Amino acid sequence: MTSTAAVREPDAVTRVPVALAERSYDILIGSGLIARAGETIAARFPGRAVAIVTDETVGALHAPALEAGLSAAGIRHHRVTVPAGEATKRFAMLEEVVDQLLGHRLERGDIVLALGGGVVGDLAGFAAAIVRRGMGFVQMPTSLLAQVDSSVGGKTGINSRHGKNLIGAFYQPGLVLADTDALDTLSTREFRAGYAEVAKYGLIDDPGFFSWLETNWRGVFQGGRDRVHAIATSCRAKAAVVARDETETGDRALLNLGHTFGHALEAITRYDGARLVHGEGVAIGMCQAFRFSAKLGLCSPDDAERMAAHLKTVGLPTEAAAIPGGVGDVDALMAAIAQDKKVARGRLTFILARGIGQSFIAKDVDAAAVREFLGEELARR
Amino acid sequence: MTSTAAVREPDAVTRVPVALAERSYDILIGSGLIARAGETIAARFPGRAVAIVTDETVGALHAPALEAGLSAAGIRHHRVTVPAGEATKRFAMLEEVVDQLLGHRLERGDIVLALGGGVVGDLAGFAAAIVRRGMGFVQMPTSLLAQVDSSVGGKTGINSRHGKNLIGAFYQPGLVLADTDALDTLSTREFRAGYAEVAKYGLIDDPGFFSWLETNWRGVFQGGRDRVHAIATSCRAKAAVVARDETETGDRALLNLGHTFGHALEAITRYDGARLVHGEGVAIGMCQAFRFSAKLGLCSPDDAERMAAHLKTVGLPTEAAAIPGGVGDVDALMAAIAQDKKVARGRLTFILARGIGQSFIAKDVDAAAVREFLGEELARR
Repeated sequence: MTSTAAVREPDAVTRVPVALAERSYDILIGSGLIARAGETIAARFPGRAVAIVTDETVGALHAPALEAGLSAAGIRHHRVTVPAGEATKRFAMLEEVVDQLLGHRLERGDIVLALGGGVVGDLAGFAAAIVRRGMGFVQMPTSLLAQVDSSVGGKTGINSRHGKNLIGAFYQPGLVLADTDALDTLSTREFRAGYAEVAKYGLIDDPGFFSWLETNWRGVFQGGRDRVHAIATSCRAKAAVVARDETETGDRALLNLGHTFGHALEAITRYDGARLVHGEGVAIGMCQAFRFSAKLGLCSPDDAERMAAHLKTVGLPTEAAAIPGGVGDVDALMAAIAQDKKVARGRLTFILARGIGQSFIAKDVDAAAVREFLGEELARR
Repeated sequence: MTSTAAVREPDAVTRVPVALAERSYDILIGSGLIARAGETIAARFPGRAVAIVTDETVGALHAPALEAGLSAAGIRHHRVTVPAGEATKRFAMLEEVVDQLLGHRLERGDIVLALGGGVVGDLAGFAAAIVRRGMGFVQMPTSLLAQVDSSVGGKTGINSRHGKNLIGAFYQPGLVLADTDALDTLSTREFRAGYAEVAKYGLIDDPGFFSWLETNWRGVFQGGRDRVHAIATSCRAKAAVVARDETETGDRALLNLGHTFGHALEAITRYDGARLVHGEGVAIGMCQAFRFSAKLGLCSPDDAERMAAHLKTVGLPTEAAAIPGGVGDVDALMAAIAQDKKVARGRLTFILARGIGQSFIAKDVDAAAVREFLGEELARR
């Protein structure tokens, strides 16, 4: 980091408002936000104590700067550390975090601050939702996936042996601080996985953004203005959907583009991050959704090829064959899809596309057609 | 029960609407509602499956009639049974109930039906709030306390080692069915304890209702129209407060009349129901709040005597000295009060009264005055 970091202008911060009536809040995106969080929180939420919930990895990297800023702003703070990884999203860890929040004598007006990726945000947000029937909550996402997806929209929760994210609450933060510098500590693989969700917003309903990404993706990976623009555009897109449909009764489902196929691949690889991480599953799933749409005659094969080519260019997998160890046969894939979604009388709901930026909710997809398509997919080499 | 039970008129059911915008719901109060719940639920929530959460005691008494009605209405139903008693309101039981709800493959639109007293309602409601980020929820309170207090207002939750009800959610039911016949299975002591909360609504802001209770309390204990009237009046009173202040930021605190002293007595007797149950603590606490108000010159001693005389008439305790085994000294009581409430710079928030039906929130009560008052109370014999 050069010495110019110290004289960064405040206008380098991009603000994305999330309009949810009395639960509206801001997402601030920019450089150096972790170190400046103390003054930001003191100004917006005066007099509140803060419990930082983080994992061992992120806590070691970023908590000291955050804590120094909180102390400098005169904010009482505590740190609650959980193990890194998806296995942390379970009842026993929730109980442990809740117990520590209460043990630190935090009141209802005090703030649970999630410093980390999606796992920490989901767990800490759920704890904030249920301690004293709802404490203050601030998200400081440190992964690209969390900055553009999981920290926006208020979904919090943990996993059950019956499935992922089956236990939780819709609970909106009072503020999201997305420090784009934090992404420099991610591995390329992690960054790429988050990039799949960035590209998703273009594929859903913003063809101009997808074209921009095709031209400027290197800048997004590099950092600086292009990265801030990509994150802000993604947050704006998600915020708009969430504002229309906070509790997912309608077109919030569009955000699931690529997720039905993707979740099935994750389940089949047993959520083994060495083989497949969520964003990679989404990348393959989006390519499959477009290829399936093309097969059904809904979308031109050119668009399906174009979107897959871009994901491939940035280094993302685009076919199930790319997953180390393979993904079994069609029966296994169909069983995994049926577990993720309710199959009502042989019909499935999918997010399909009429082209890049023209995704839609297809409520009546024939399971037999899905099966035939998956057979062709597994034959791809 | 006589044969006229079979020809009860539907107009015997009193409806109390709870106005909470898009979360508005009805409380139905009357005879025979448990057996008729199947048709009621089928009419209001067509196509939903039901999970009955109940405890061993209440389940044995009332679940068969409920299940017969659900089956007759063609509703798929499951029963989830938890142990009776306050100890059930803990994390391990929450996890167990949540796991069973998911194991029965209940969807987000399906209904968690709490059949029981406050413990079952609080636990089941919290489970309903967090499974799939919010399922349908119907309350069927079977204790007087639950019918007039805990089933109205949307507070759900469990206890922590740091205190009672510290973990939970505000989660409104879609319907409350208060079957007044179910109260016939309560012991007199349990009924009396619930009656303390009924009397509370008169003491807070409805002197006419308190006078009515002084005249008609035998009818309330007996059953029939007077009981329905008392329960409906109580629910209406609570619903009005909740509608004004759903998440307790303002005058919902009035509902805590008698609860600061009462909770301290419960804590000191270690929530041992053999010595003191919640409603008894509230009865003593309300008498103390009025005596304290009289001592401070806020309320006439006549009103303090009059309200205590009525509670004594129905068989409720009115002094800490009535608690078997005693309650320790002033220091112990003050420590228990400090644990229940934040004592900010020697000042406490109490609900005090200027007379019967004239309660108010006193935010700046001198802890030294409370201590002096409690010394006098403990000297009473």
